[in-house]
Amino acid sequence: MKEIRLALIGFGSVGREFCRIISERGSEWEEKFGCSFPVTVITTASRGSLMNPEGIDINRALEEINSYGRFGHDNPELSDITSMEAAALDSNDVVIEISTLNIESGQPATDHITAALKTGKHVITANKGPVAFHYRKLQKLAREENRHFLFEGVVMDCAPVFNLARETLPGCKIKGFRGILNSTTNYILCSMAKGMTFEKALQTAQEGGWVEADPSMDIDGWDAAAKTAALINVLMDGDITPPLIERAGISGISTEMIKANKKDGKVIKLICEGYLDDRGSARGRVSPTALTEEDRMARIEGTTSLLELNTDLAGKLSITIDDPKIGQTAYALISDLLTICRKY
Amino acid sequence: MKEIRLALIGFGSVGREFCRIISERGSEWEEKFGCSFPVTVITTASRGSLMNPEGIDINRALEEINSYGRFGHDNPELSDITSMEAAALDSNDVVIEISTLNIESGQPATDHITAALKTGKHVITANKGPVAFHYRKLQKLAREENRHFLFEGVVMDCAPVFNLARETLPGCKIKGFRGILNSTTNYILCSMAKGMTFEKALQTAQEGGWVEADPSMDIDGWDAAAKTAALINVLMDGDITPPLIERAGISGISTEMIKANKKDGKVIKLICEGYLDDRGSARGRVSPTALTEEDRMARIEGTTSLLELNTDLAGKLSITIDDPKIGQTAYALISDLLTICRKY
Repeated sequence: MKEIRLALIGFGSVGREFCRIISERGSEWEEKFGCSFPVTVITTASRGSLMNPEGIDINRALEEINSYGRFGHDNPELSDITSMEAAALDSNDVVIEISTLNIESGQPATDHITAALKTGKHVITANKGPVAFHYRKLQKLAREENRHFLFEGVVMDCAPVFNLARETLPGCKIKGFRGILNSTTNYILCSMAKGMTFEKALQTAQEGGWVEADPSMDIDGWDAAAKTAALINVLMDGDITPPLIERAGISGISTEMIKANKKDGKVIKLICEGYLDDRGSARGRVSPTALTEEDRMARIEGTTSLLELNTDLAGKLSITIDDPKIGQTAYALISDLLTICRKY
Repeated sequence: MKEIRLALIGFGSVGREFCRIISERGSEWEEKFGCSFPVTVITTASRGSLMNPEGIDINRALEEINSYGRFGHDNPELSDITSMEAAALDSNDVVIEISTLNIESGQPATDHITAALKTGKHVITANKGPVAFHYRKLQKLAREENRHFLFEGVVMDCAPVFNLARETLPGCKIKGFRGILNSTTNYILCSMAKGMTFEKALQTAQEGGWVEADPSMDIDGWDAAAKTAALINVLMDGDITPPLIERAGISGISTEMIKANKKDGKVIKLICEGYLDDRGSARGRVSPTALTEEDRMARIEGTTSLLELNTDLAGKLSITIDDPKIGQTAYALISDLLTICRKY
């Protein structure tokens, strides 16, 4: 039995769900993949940190966070280790970077990932920032260190977007894409089409828990731009950052505009696009777009996401994930982990 | 540079397009994957056969078939080799099985594949029969021989259906699926909804060249049942053959029924389903089904295909390929070939 030892940088809802699934399904996967996945360190910004080289008691950690909102003061695995130290800890094999993101800098996630790769760890992240801002540099470092840098959860939760292109479309070029990739804005636009005000729709989305801490990250298209940049960098071999994406959000969209378009048989959606410009460079755009009702994008409701790939040899392929929950974001990390396990 | 030597059993439109793409893109892939792909033998039932251990002159072969409908009598590579002999030829690495299918027996494709695997070749096929009728046996043989048996083209052309599940959803269980997988019947139903008669719609599809030689294979749901069986066997670890699929075709569907359903806001589609029965066994069904217009299946037009997977950890994922052409079927073979090349 191989042991793949994990460091978790961050322990928010995704990290907790990741641990819950590992705890529930781990023994099945031990049998199937011949690997076990002990978590030896968990660091957080404000809930304490845990370390145990033999493997943290995950169920206790989950119970404590659920009960007290932080690790218990009497937990024998409590530790003063910092996130940067945990990322570089020699005894681990894989670092799972799910710390809170600063979207403007991609930090501190990018520093954690760099430290982990430089000390020989594989890295998995669900953080957009590093892939949107620093993909080439990080991918180059991973290649030099002969380590995997995987991030399926960055776009469309666990829907296999990056893995699809990497594993299932060899030799095929992606010439462009179109997608609905930000749940919050799609939920708001759908709610407004049903007659809700923008403010009420935003509030409902916030109560649903899927709006960024700073709502303008969603509303003004920054989250969509970060995902568009990530897709361009990875799928189209681009070299772009979110500020270089042509970007318009949905704050200018009124209920009246939505109604007027509906009369013309059209639906307004926040569309993310990647395309090749006249000189063959990959570029991106995020903009509210009036679509005919025949367009499959027009039919994407609520928090469902869709990505349509335009390829040279595989024609036009689309992938949809229906209304993903936190379990699907956590599975994105797990699918990356099992990919590493299979190639290890 | 590695040489991956290919035998082509069958040289219909898919085989010819495969060779055209290999000839066009081969040098690019040599650089990228470090492999070249000489075709050393091509066998056909009625167009002659070619063999050259140094690599057949593909462009000449294509020109001859396009000009005379068969290989030229003065082609120095002409050979008397049979398909069974070609499948077992020691000097090859990969056998590409694209002979004409007998859907009732899965032969002679299954015999070719068995001979190839037993003599140590990897096998790629776009033939439904072997996967629908003999998947377990062939997969077991491939595993024993430590060879790949790949067949992405069997369902939805090159849309990564089997590869998606195998490569991108590790540890995830597929609990069921629903799809529109037969182009001919979907094209006919769409045409009838626009007012065309069944007969006229079938004739148009036949002129388009995508109806099976025996149209009842499409119309009576046999092609859909074979694809459903293939998906159940591979994705749901089932053990089923097409006759065990509950099956109804579209010959009982009249223009009047389509109109009456339209009045109720419904659309009739030939839906393929895989599901677990009460005892947890994977079963399948092909049947014309009245769908509400909100159902994304209701919106699949013409020769576009859609597969929706219901999973335990990844939620509900759908994949669509828009109006695939012969190049997309050929790319299915190529994606399998490059997969073997990467793992070789």
